[in-house]
Amino acid sequence: MARVVVDVMLKPEILDPQGQAVANALPRLGVTDVSSVRIGRRIEIDFTGEPDLDRAREIADKLLANPVIEDFEIRVESASAEVA
Amino acid sequence: MARVVVDVMLKPEILDPQGQAVANALPRLGVTDVSSVRIGRRIEIDFTGEPDLDRAREIADKLLANPVIEDFEIRVESASAEVA
Repeated sequence: MARVVVDVMLKPEILDPQGQAVANALPRLGVTDVSSVRIGRRIEIDFTGEPDLDRAREIADKLLANPVIEDFEIRVESASAEVA
Repeated sequence: MARVVVDVMLKPEILDPQGQAVANALPRLGVTDVSSVRIGRRIEIDFTGEPDLDRAREIADKLLANPVIEDFEIRVESASAEVA
């Protein structure tokens, strides 16, 4: 099994109120050295066979991201469990 | 400037209706070799100085993830623009 990861983030010039809300909450945790927080989406697509980056790019473009306000980045990742 | 990336994903045993909706739409695009789609969040935290992983872990634990249903993973990333 092969996993393709698509990271979808708002374009830098688009305001991110969700990220700003987190950034504004940080001083209450005693964190003062954070300049910016941006929140986007991470999509994990598991292929049954070989990972198909072109196919994944088509999926991202048509179903996952809004190209007017979002950029996306695609990469192949081994389907291991890396969790904290 | 240093960037810490926090990936928050639903635990594997938690149902992901959003990802399933995408997976169910794939045959309409002619994609039949995808076994699973999971959708989570990617949070980019820009530190003004050195990246502080312990601090980022505290932020993720208290503000970004719900530890009951979500796992998170933290890594330092150079603040370069990798977009598609």
